[in-house]
Amino acid sequence: MALGAIAGGCDCFFGYPITPQNEVPEILSVQMPRRGRVFLQAESEVASINMVYGAAAAGMRAMTSSSSPGVSLMMEGLSYIAGAQLPCLVVNVMRGGPGLGSITPSQGDYFQACKGGGHGDYHCIVLAPWNVQEMYEMPGLAFELADRYRCPAMILADGVLGAMMEPARIPDEPPVATPPPKPWATSGRNGRATQNVVNSLVIDPYELRDHNRDLQKTYQRMQSEVRHDARFDDDAEIVVVAYGIAARLALSACKLARERGVRAGLVRPITLYPFPAQAIREVGKQAGRVLVVELSSGQMVEDVRLAIDGAVPVAFYGEMGGVLPSPEEVCEQIVREVR
Amino acid sequence: MALGAIAGGCDCFFGYPITPQNEVPEILSVQMPRRGRVFLQAESEVASINMVYGAAAAGMRAMTSSSSPGVSLMMEGLSYIAGAQLPCLVVNVMRGGPGLGSITPSQGDYFQACKGGGHGDYHCIVLAPWNVQEMYEMPGLAFELADRYRCPAMILADGVLGAMMEPARIPDEPPVATPPPKPWATSGRNGRATQNVVNSLVIDPYELRDHNRDLQKTYQRMQSEVRHDARFDDDAEIVVVAYGIAARLALSACKLARERGVRAGLVRPITLYPFPAQAIREVGKQAGRVLVVELSSGQMVEDVRLAIDGAVPVAFYGEMGGVLPSPEEVCEQIVREVR
Amino acid sequence: MALGAIAGGCDCFFGYPITPQNEVPEILSVQMPRRGRVFLQAESEVASINMVYGAAAAGMRAMTSSSSPGVSLMMEGLSYIAGAQLPCLVVNVMRGGPGLGSITPSQGDYFQACKGGGHGDYHCIVLAPWNVQEMYEMPGLAFELADRYRCPAMILADGVLGAMMEPARIPDEPPVATPPPKPWATSGRNGRATQNVVNSLVIDPYELRDHNRDLQKTYQRMQSEVRHDARFDDDAEIVVVAYGIAARLALSACKLARERGVRAGLVRPITLYPFPAQAIREVGKQAGRVLVVELSSGQMVEDVRLAIDGAVPVAFYGEMGGVLPSPEEVCEQIVREVR
Amino acid sequence: MALGAIAGGCDCFFGYPITPQNEVPEILSVQMPRRGRVFLQAESEVASINMVYGAAAAGMRAMTSSSSPGVSLMMEGLSYIAGAQLPCLVVNVMRGGPGLGSITPSQGDYFQACKGGGHGDYHCIVLAPWNVQEMYEMPGLAFELADRYRCPAMILADGVLGAMMEPARIPDEPPVATPPPKPWATSGRNGRATQNVVNSLVIDPYELRDHNRDLQKTYQRMQSEVRHDARFDDDAEIVVVAYGIAARLALSACKLARERGVRAGLVRPITLYPFPAQAIREVGKQAGRVLVVELSSGQMVEDVRLAIDGAVPVAFYGEMGGVLPSPEEVCEQIVREVR
Repeated sequence: MALGAIAGGCDCFFGYPITPQNEVPEILSVQMPRRGRVFLQAESEVASINMVYGAAAAGMRAMTSSSSPGVSLMMEGLSYIAGAQLPCLVVNVMRGGPGLGSITPSQGDYFQACKGGGHGDYHCIVLAPWNVQEMYEMPGLAFELADRYRCPAMILADGVLGAMMEPARIPDEPPVATPPPKPWATSGRNGRATQNVVNSLVIDPYELRDHNRDLQKTYQRMQSEVRHDARFDDDAEIVVVAYGIAARLALSACKLARERGVRAGLVRPITLYPFPAQAIREVGKQAGRVLVVELSSGQMVEDVRLAIDGAVPVAFYGEMGGVLPSPEEVCEQIVREVR
Repeated sequence: MALGAIAGGCDCFFGYPITPQNEVPEILSVQMPRRGRVFLQAESEVASINMVYGAAAAGMRAMTSSSSPGVSLMMEGLSYIAGAQLPCLVVNVMRGGPGLGSITPSQGDYFQACKGGGHGDYHCIVLAPWNVQEMYEMPGLAFELADRYRCPAMILADGVLGAMMEPARIPDEPPVATPPPKPWATSGRNGRATQNVVNSLVIDPYELRDHNRDLQKTYQRMQSEVRHDARFDDDAEIVVVAYGIAARLALSACKLARERGVRAGLVRPITLYPFPAQAIREVGKQAGRVLVVELSSGQMVEDVRLAIDGAVPVAFYGEMGGVLPSPEEVCEQIVREVR
Repeated sequence: MALGAIAGGCDCFFGYPITPQNEVPEILSVQMPRRGRVFLQAESEVASINMVYGAAAAGMRAMTSSSSPGVSLMMEGLSYIAGAQLPCLVVNVMRGGPGLGSITPSQGDYFQACKGGGHGDYHCIVLAPWNVQEMYEMPGLAFELADRYRCPAMILADGVLGAMMEPARIPDEPPVATPPPKPWATSGRNGRATQNVVNSLVIDPYELRDHNRDLQKTYQRMQSEVRHDARFDDDAEIVVVAYGIAARLALSACKLARERGVRAGLVRPITLYPFPAQAIREVGKQAGRVLVVELSSGQMVEDVRLAIDGAVPVAFYGEMGGVLPSPEEVCEQIVREVR
Repeated sequence: MALGAIAGGCDCFFGYPITPQNEVPEILSVQMPRRGRVFLQAESEVASINMVYGAAAAGMRAMTSSSSPGVSLMMEGLSYIAGAQLPCLVVNVMRGGPGLGSITPSQGDYFQACKGGGHGDYHCIVLAPWNVQEMYEMPGLAFELADRYRCPAMILADGVLGAMMEPARIPDEPPVATPPPKPWATSGRNGRATQNVVNSLVIDPYELRDHNRDLQKTYQRMQSEVRHDARFDDDAEIVVVAYGIAARLALSACKLARERGVRAGLVRPITLYPFPAQAIREVGKQAGRVLVVELSSGQMVEDVRLAIDGAVPVAFYGEMGGVLPSPEEVCEQIVREVR
């Protein structure tokens, strides 16, 4: 992810240490200065996100990275960045919660990432990698989408992905990312008559209404960026919906289920926001039943149920606290649902 | 609300100023010391919520109050308090967002309050007053429920309620609130062999799983506390679902609609978490159509749709940025839905 | 010291833990709430001193306690309190510095305490205890003097005194401290036409000059509070000047020196500010030579030299880093100076 | 000063705004990034000095700039930097104190700069410019001396110098500053067997004593860097000692006095630490009387008195609160002292 951020044109990283994502700042602390870019360990996560806010306002590709409790400290700043219509990247390598919890993997921050952990009607683009290859590729994609829609992007990974070693294709000379022009940035007048102002304060209620309507239009346009991955879905009698590391477990479970004669398919949301509701609805209706697997008490399952809207049954299987279910256990649940 | 907090046995208030809720700390700064209780203006909202955490751990009835951006700063602390299974009260007098936004009323923080603005699988009890009488009564109720379930409670009000003047019955001598015994509190050994420890850190994943299962059981038990208010629902051909100040507008709109021959009814969730899903499902199915009205781009509407689960159509009407729709406008929307 | 603070009428304690003074907040955290007084562990030392500032402005007897690094964080706040002419008590149980240093005893913060560690022309009353009895008595005295002169008072102790156990007379029922009326306090109008304002901001330079002249007049008046202790000074051929724990070592050294035929005397400043310059000058001139002993590289020695002003030789003997010289070593130095 | 910092090889600037020094960060915020160097507005002065600490540990030429209250917030960090034996540059453009005071010029922070505003036995090299030329030249000199002695350097200016416009010679292509090698820096192993550690924590008292003795030896060696400026001192019957803007006033006053037949001379300390004690003693003794002029209640006067040590009379003339005495007024004081 650190190398992907560099390849993706990250100009500035601001962060504060927390397990299980310390490898990201560790690598960037060495690699960013070598390239004349900024790495800064801030005083706290509150400081980090506000430095991201400032650098993003100045037109920089700015990012921070943390894990669950640290990301919670960023909720005010994230809402400010969204309100000010600025692009940036926030990485959350989720650990078990709530509270300090543990440093083991979890998917308990889906609601925070996708429903607005901060205040007000805003959204981040949320990307969920499931292997090291995507961990490398997604920072660049996240910066690109964030710039396109002038909104924060989030990568929602977990402690397994944060510690995983596996082969990935990393180009020797990654293509140089060329951010779009940012005429709104507070990077000096550049010959204009007036200076740019970046702000999230809109005192007049009618102006704030219009501002919110603009944001909502952006979120509508953003729907075209929805991404998902489907496997064994053509003939599925049950479709499993899972993201990130849970999707890897679910894919193995689908294969096991097919060995046992149950035609299980998988839909893996790659973008959690915008959510691939239409694809899930179609595949789900065709299969006739849906099982959502998460490392939580059930968060994404709500978006799946909203997508299905009562058309077919939606079951849930989850595990919490950093315990990973085995493919066998997930397979048994799949079989149980069908029979 | 300030007087209600005092009557409700609030021992300690920690907060930081923000409009439109400054009347709460202003009054408490005078009234709490007079009663030998603690009022403290903290360095920041981050400090406030952590002081609430500490006081709650020591068995005190502790509260803080803020408005949207300030509440976002409390998300880490709130998750810690939930993880540590501590009772407390957080008041959010919502203003228009995202970001600094404005100081006008809004309901844009429903997701944050009800879906977990902080990290991890946790919930607060969320109460939504709609008049000054409930503003007075809810702090006591919130403390009582928080103590019963050892979880944070939140009162989700808005800028209109924060500024509203209207008659309310306030007892001359409010009944003295008697909190339950708190044998878990870190208030000294009190003759026990070992000291109590309050923490949200559970390093072992299997212990953290068990801890999370306990939390989920608590959230199940909590469902019995669901509260709602229904008006004109017996013969309704359309049911409006709204909370807080939007419900007052909606009630006026229902009356206007009935004058125009449309039998509109209202269901007002009083507890937003636990959510009155069953009542809404029953009333909604009976009426045949549902309209959700919120001062947001549509947040509670997801919980209504999850409750209805496709059984009948669910429409949404919202306004953002601190602009209040008139009862006439809501009435027109009601009529439009039916015809 | 904690018991002395209670007996001295301390209304509020704000602090943050640091060795070697943790016994003070530990005891007060239990004892203050029992008496309906405030104990609060703040977010940081910066927060602590600003809470002291606020409580002092409201007329409370407010204190904080820390050790060297923590006290350095209070320098801005202390200057504000001095500028706003407010009474308060700051305790510094000095440890070895600079930086984190160690937790061993030191007297390296004399300059900070007496010359103005914060910015601007201000002074604190600085008291230096040398045994547990004075540790108990000085908080009350400090509050009394601070109230009288409306200035911060500091108790400058060290890590030995912070850990020392020895008999002290503590009255069963200490006399109730009755602070003077504080008509300037921001405790409400109390029938006056206008509210009090407490501030350290004086924008107009001529007003700020007058304000500073007032402060200087206060520091002049304060000179009458100078306190010192003299032993064996009548016939001394050399006078040792030392304060705090160094004075105990020095007293033993004087006795040893007299056994060896050197008539050594001791002057122990009890108030470091105001400094007992006149007493030291008189005793020093009479003896003909002076030796200053400090647990530092030589800080108070400057005030002794300013007092003596070249009249007789002033030597210095110091130790740093938490190492205490033995009475033998100090005695040898005394003898060496005379012969 | 900003241009001088760039010419002096400043790699990183960290700061927080405060009048009257905002021109420094304003210019550096534009000029540093253009050169691939770091400018960062931190969350607070506490954050600023700790970022300076970190960057200095990594071998960078790091600086911060502030005014009196902001500098007080840096006292803990400064003591850490001194304890860790790191070079850095702190600029204080003094304003009237204590507390918030005003934004007018002052010299009230001499004690803080020269006697150790932070805790423990440490010193900064302190340079006092008196015109724009020195404002330009001193950052480079400060970095050079700081690197040589591995200690913090401070430039102690004032609000007049902060706002003054006058001609200065600034080379078109300033000589490139080449800092010495820093084999102690935490910039990677660079082929060594072990990593460098930078710390100010020395738990063992005997080690901390040795560490302090090393520091004191450094301060002894540093005495060779003492710098002063003397005018009309050969035949002076009274010598005025003043630094910074007060020295400019004093020089004019000396000229006026000579017009009136009083042979006044001037000694201007350029380094406040190390202090030109020997020069002042010699010139003072020769002249027979000394007058110290400061924009304070009298702080440097103590160092002058310690230098003179009673040999000749030392008088003081000061003004406080941002009011500048006129050369006429100073001249009158000179004349009064002589007659």
